[in-house]
Amino acid sequence: MRHSASHVMAGAILSMFPGARFGIGPAIEDGFYYDFDLPRPLTPEDLPVIEANMKEIVGADLPFERREIGKSEAKQVFASQPYKLELLEEIPDDKVGVYRQGGFVDLCRGPHVGSTGDVKAFKLTSIAGAYWRGDEHNAMLQRIYGVAFNSQKELDEHLAQLEEAKKRDHRKLGKELEIFIFDDLVGPGLPLWLPRGGAMIEEIEKLAKEMEFKHGYVRVRTPHISKEDLFKQSGHLPYYAESMYPPMELEGVRYYLKPMNCPMHHRIFASKMRSYRDLPLRLAEYGACYRYEKSGELFGVMRTRSMIMNDSHIYCTEGQFEQEFTGVIFLYLEYFKIFGIKEYIMRLSTHHPSGLGKKYVDNQSLWLKTEDMVRKAMNDNNIPFHEVADEAAFYGPKIDVQIKSAVGREFTLATNQVDFAQSINCDLKFINKDGQEERPLIIHRAPLSTHERLIGFLLEHYAGAFPAWLAPVQVKIIPVSDRHNEHATKVAVALKGHAIRAEVDDRSERMNQKIRQAQLEKVPYMVVIGDKETADNSVSVRRRSGEQLPAQPLAAFIDGLTEEISNRR
Amino acid sequence: MRHSASHVMAGAILSMFPGARFGIGPAIEDGFYYDFDLPRPLTPEDLPVIEANMKEIVGADLPFERREIGKSEAKQVFASQPYKLELLEEIPDDKVGVYRQGGFVDLCRGPHVGSTGDVKAFKLTSIAGAYWRGDEHNAMLQRIYGVAFNSQKELDEHLAQLEEAKKRDHRKLGKELEIFIFDDLVGPGLPLWLPRGGAMIEEIEKLAKEMEFKHGYVRVRTPHISKEDLFKQSGHLPYYAESMYPPMELEGVRYYLKPMNCPMHHRIFASKMRSYRDLPLRLAEYGACYRYEKSGELFGVMRTRSMIMNDSHIYCTEGQFEQEFTGVIFLYLEYFKIFGIKEYIMRLSTHHPSGLGKKYVDNQSLWLKTEDMVRKAMNDNNIPFHEVADEAAFYGPKIDVQIKSAVGREFTLATNQVDFAQSINCDLKFINKDGQEERPLIIHRAPLSTHERLIGFLLEHYAGAFPAWLAPVQVKIIPVSDRHNEHATKVAVALKGHAIRAEVDDRSERMNQKIRQAQLEKVPYMVVIGDKETADNSVSVRRRSGEQLPAQPLAAFIDGLTEEISNRR
Repeated sequence: MRHSASHVMAGAILSMFPGARFGIGPAIEDGFYYDFDLPRPLTPEDLPVIEANMKEIVGADLPFERREIGKSEAKQVFASQPYKLELLEEIPDDKVGVYRQGGFVDLCRGPHVGSTGDVKAFKLTSIAGAYWRGDEHNAMLQRIYGVAFNSQKELDEHLAQLEEAKKRDHRKLGKELEIFIFDDLVGPGLPLWLPRGGAMIEEIEKLAKEMEFKHGYVRVRTPHISKEDLFKQSGHLPYYAESMYPPMELEGVRYYLKPMNCPMHHRIFASKMRSYRDLPLRLAEYGACYRYEKSGELFGVMRTRSMIMNDSHIYCTEGQFEQEFTGVIFLYLEYFKIFGIKEYIMRLSTHHPSGLGKKYVDNQSLWLKTEDMVRKAMNDNNIPFHEVADEAAFYGPKIDVQIKSAVGREFTLATNQVDFAQSINCDLKFINKDGQEERPLIIHRAPLSTHERLIGFLLEHYAGAFPAWLAPVQVKIIPVSDRHNEHATKVAVALKGHAIRAEVDDRSERMNQKIRQAQLEKVPYMVVIGDKETADNSVSVRRRSGEQLPAQPLAAFIDGLTEEISNRR
Repeated sequence: MRHSASHVMAGAILSMFPGARFGIGPAIEDGFYYDFDLPRPLTPEDLPVIEANMKEIVGADLPFERREIGKSEAKQVFASQPYKLELLEEIPDDKVGVYRQGGFVDLCRGPHVGSTGDVKAFKLTSIAGAYWRGDEHNAMLQRIYGVAFNSQKELDEHLAQLEEAKKRDHRKLGKELEIFIFDDLVGPGLPLWLPRGGAMIEEIEKLAKEMEFKHGYVRVRTPHISKEDLFKQSGHLPYYAESMYPPMELEGVRYYLKPMNCPMHHRIFASKMRSYRDLPLRLAEYGACYRYEKSGELFGVMRTRSMIMNDSHIYCTEGQFEQEFTGVIFLYLEYFKIFGIKEYIMRLSTHHPSGLGKKYVDNQSLWLKTEDMVRKAMNDNNIPFHEVADEAAFYGPKIDVQIKSAVGREFTLATNQVDFAQSINCDLKFINKDGQEERPLIIHRAPLSTHERLIGFLLEHYAGAFPAWLAPVQVKIIPVSDRHNEHATKVAVALKGHAIRAEVDDRSERMNQKIRQAQLEKVPYMVVIGDKETADNSVSVRRRSGEQLPAQPLAAFIDGLTEEISNRR
């Protein structure tokens, strides 16, 4: 149907531009496009006109007629269509398919719907330039994109979602809500977190540290650079070099920025003789790593070159593996509950034999063994997952958690990786119960991803309207007029005394204007301070949703909000 | 007297080794040394013998006799002393001084005490190799170090202090208490903080963040690297390059590790149009910086190449300067109270005209003006300080806080700096009340220094016996025998549920051995769990000091300790 819609559009173009030359017009996700060579550039104003033309063609309910014709006949049919002739040349068969609806004929394998009336609901969305066959040495054609659905309802929903996606785009919200910036003097992919982003980072770290303390993690801090020796030992330099920043050379020694925290944590593990009594050892760190992503791959804070990672490495025995590995998965689920994340998929990424010794450590029996251990751990605990071959880390298989953001963007948020290779590379060992040396298994995990990716996701997930505990500003205090500023400031001091992030809007603006501003900033609570509130130390509270709460004593508001924040409701 | 002690030692050596050749023997802080060329290497066992010989000379109370003699006579006197002859050659005068006590004569300007009996109390401390005149091309002599005081009491106190200093040395304690390590694979000056150091860092950051929230700071996060453009703009590259790591060059762009956080914070300041209503703006960050200190200057965690800084930059108007600057000083004093720091000196470092345009930004009128502002702020608030010229930062004058650690090490802990230069370099401005553009003043401050230096200091200050809130392990739970392990674990869970860092020592060791171990680890509280405690859920608590607290219900112990921790008592 979407492919048929592209033919309908081509028919409309032909009626508007009789000399039009046609490129190709495939169906794509949610819609279609067609590339045209036209006598003049199209403008957005053309789109409604083309749509109106398409609607006429749809209304006429013209049948899509398929014919199979010989190549020489086809060359005559497309004599004035150089792009079609070029495509014809490359078809090895003697016969080719053509489709006609009304006056428009296209070289096409099909299939199509029965008639143009079956193209129920569509909308043209944009115009773009596109080189013929994607080659910049060829002519630049004009491409029109459209979306098409089986019903107007579905189309409307899709358009609403697109609209919402635009509004929720984390790059737009990140700027509007003053969460982060990028700066040309600092460099691409290196976000600077503004105070409001900083407040969110602090809250997320607080959450992670509480949870990790509860789950028996201990915290370490490691440098951001190291001599190359470390990354040679860990295997990053042979296997991961192309994702690393280049070295700094100093007095004959080469230092690298760390692309991962693991080699540092392994040195901490190795810093003393370990016994089975020390295991599992769970080393946690919010460690900033640096990876040289190609400029074209950078995407807001979702894909960056600096990343502050919710990292941890768990060193355990084989016997402890299952409990530790699924412990991490259950930790994900706790977090997902806090953030209201309901759509996620666990994906087991395994090795591929063809990559052994290249992108994967060359030890197939350990690959097979650890992949089985992960499958068993997941199955034993009834955690659904699906498998993808050839997507593992260089040191072992992993479970990635794919989530879909509110705008339909799907990406890997969290990861839980097995590592059987680095304990060999880095000569990590412990003395087991029998007094023998044994290699620990290592789990690399990052349930809360990086601050960059998590906050990017949360911006879209909540459309910037964060729950109170996470909101950069939790309460905006709005004095009705200047004479209430003094009391408003006292209220702010009282709130701050309870660790609540409160701001007074003491500009000389009208109250409604201040409320609008707080609304734009998506502050969860607005507290209006007028004569009555000043007189009896009460507060008049308005939620971000517009809901007006009953007047209450300041102390009661503080108690309620403190409870809401500390329980992360 | 100390110089005389070195002559006494030389006399003792002469009596033991008649063929000894003598280098030089000056007084130094707390003592003296003398360099000898001897027929055999000395061992530590020689020191008591030499001391006994010295005591005889002191007991004989021989006078120090001074003579002035001609050079030719001197050459005869020192005919068998080649080092003395070499020194003689270099003396321009015709006459030289010689001192004699008993059979020992030395070439010496003096002065000396009257007689050897005036050398009251001394001790030889160590033997070291020393090249003649410090030149590695010369002969290697043997140097003996000693300390000397006017009374045995003073000597004893000094020796006790030395002993204490050795015990408190942060490098020794840092290793014993498992606070940090250095690792050859990572590189010199780059500490890795072990879990116990990590726990301390978390507590210190918690303290700083609470205090800074209370004082109106907001938190940001910035990358550890930047394009060189940023550091050129800020002035670090011309003025600070030699302290920076070399660049990473990538696709024609040079990236540097940040040696300071300020240029990043300035970009945040500059990220939107600022009004006087936004000031003071206090941007805070625990930011890791990298400075290339020479290997010879590295010293434990007191002087490192990576440093996690308690950093902040305050952007303010001239009118706000005094309040902001002294606000920082008062913040120091709050911290010093918490840590029980009583000995400190505030030092105002100013520019020197000869450094203008070289190590100092070339704007003398602003130097003079801001130096006066600092003096005025300090004087108005009755904060004592002293001045040192030619020690300022390149961008302005500063107050450094010098403190003396328990082992007598004096160093700069905190700093509070004025910056009038970077707001010009980085084109920082705000719109003042009159609608005009104006440059903000910037205060760079780090009351809690870096984690590295602060924890190094605190290790020595507390000799590793940290107050409970800061102790890496707050409670050690000691089951009397294996059958109490289960209840001990329950007690640990209860403590951890109240965010108390507790560990169970469930090794199969005797109770006294476990207590000794907890004592060595300097854990503030030991909780012994036996039959009675298991039966009635009580705890038997022992302080690190050895003090035994009365038996109490577990809940009461938790309440008391929680109160002690949250008030940082």
